[in-house]
Amino acid sequence: MSRGKLRVAFQGELGSYSEEAASKFFGQDFEPVPMRSLLSVFTAVEAGSADYGVVPIENSIEGGVGETYDLLLSSGLKVVGEVYVRVVHCLIGLDGAEISEIKRVYSHPQALAQCRAYITMMGFEPVSTYDTAGAVKLVKEMGDRSNAAIASERAAGIYGMKVLAKGIEDYGRNYTRFLVMGREAVGAPRRPKTSVIFSVPHRAGALYRALEPFATREINLTKIESRPTRARPWQYYFFVDFEGDARDERVREALTDLASRTLFLKVLGTYESGRVEFEE
Amino acid sequence: MSRGKLRVAFQGELGSYSEEAASKFFGQDFEPVPMRSLLSVFTAVEAGSADYGVVPIENSIEGGVGETYDLLLSSGLKVVGEVYVRVVHCLIGLDGAEISEIKRVYSHPQALAQCRAYITMMGFEPVSTYDTAGAVKLVKEMGDRSNAAIASERAAGIYGMKVLAKGIEDYGRNYTRFLVMGREAVGAPRRPKTSVIFSVPHRAGALYRALEPFATREINLTKIESRPTRARPWQYYFFVDFEGDARDERVREALTDLASRTLFLKVLGTYESGRVEFEE
Repeated sequence: MSRGKLRVAFQGELGSYSEEAASKFFGQDFEPVPMRSLLSVFTAVEAGSADYGVVPIENSIEGGVGETYDLLLSSGLKVVGEVYVRVVHCLIGLDGAEISEIKRVYSHPQALAQCRAYITMMGFEPVSTYDTAGAVKLVKEMGDRSNAAIASERAAGIYGMKVLAKGIEDYGRNYTRFLVMGREAVGAPRRPKTSVIFSVPHRAGALYRALEPFATREINLTKIESRPTRARPWQYYFFVDFEGDARDERVREALTDLASRTLFLKVLGTYESGRVEFEE
Repeated sequence: MSRGKLRVAFQGELGSYSEEAASKFFGQDFEPVPMRSLLSVFTAVEAGSADYGVVPIENSIEGGVGETYDLLLSSGLKVVGEVYVRVVHCLIGLDGAEISEIKRVYSHPQALAQCRAYITMMGFEPVSTYDTAGAVKLVKEMGDRSNAAIASERAAGIYGMKVLAKGIEDYGRNYTRFLVMGREAVGAPRRPKTSVIFSVPHRAGALYRALEPFATREINLTKIESRPTRARPWQYYFFVDFEGDARDERVREALTDLASRTLFLKVLGTYESGRVEFEE
């Protein structure tokens, strides 16, 4: 790796959930490289101006992040890790502001959606922004005490803003799964997971036949997501995650078998499964 | 049906793509019932204040509309039809505005994403709003010639605004699929499609086993989408569409077989397949 600190790219401002994912994976000692889009994160890693990229792939409430799936398809990068981050949304206002003064809340559309019940109950007007931490920065810049942002406690701290309410999301079990992208595959992990993309012919039983190589070898699928291909409407790519290492014989056989049943197959990488800390 | 005009609810302002889908399905002679959220569309139909609801389920570029999937799961409504609408985005400005004056573009995040290459090329600053047609209304109200909206030509006409550029989306084959929701199932369609939701146990081969009843009966799946359950992170519901009528014997057998292999199964309805007008 590089001799200095690792440079880790992510979408959003400092204090975003993506930066939190990066610090959970790399520890505190990395150089954050904030980017304005997911595309820029991939490009930075591909070009070598960042060592790794950390990108959201899925939220436990909202579902898949379409843009990331599309970038995984077109990029040559490898998945080298995954991180789960518990999402705890805070209502964040100017220093001295009180909840009773708030009229408008700024945040990313997904965060607004995740706090819908709270926003409705409080009678706030929701306003979309591109990033949760960016909303905190914007509210600070506007300097109007009737504005608030929805973001992480960490984002409030970074911008010196006040947490007016914490844990305002509608569903408590709210996690976002992030993938760590790198230029080279990683060595054998202890609890390996592998991600692949494939497409199948448009005929009865094609997807069923594609899953058979996993089922007969008792390989556990942890996720399947279909995404429309851009070339032709209503044909799909399938993104599949499963437990196992692509270098193990049983998995290698399954992938060889799968390749013979699909139009297209790409192995995105084998990596250590991330840990979810559930509070039951 | 009701004696007056059919009341059809949809999300967004008049001139939205959802209203366009409604008029494609019901013809011109219906009473539009604009709603501020997808939840309100479902509630209006359930409560009888609207006869039908028209909701986006999937875009050929961006993928599934998560909120609609979640509402299908929790609602008692039936899918009674589907409509495909070709998305042709326009850059829309004030009367008298020229493209060279435009600095900011307002639209729904999905529409902004679909015009990313154009926006970048033109150097516009993208600003998110909740609705494409609502962005046109907003730009009109602000009265600043450096603002523009991205929405349909129809929306420009409704608000008396000027189309500055047409077909600015990055990918030409851009369609949105809408579902028509009603309180009661419809009679036997000529080209039937059926939508179901199910969940499977978290073990190797469970999804594969769930698709077997379709594969052995040569029932063609047209779509599979997984959505995280809200109750427990990283367990999934599967939304599956297939060709066939839930009242036909072969399909009935497949569904009975499927029910014995799943934790949960809900048949959302059988309806006439919508037509996509492809330009090759």
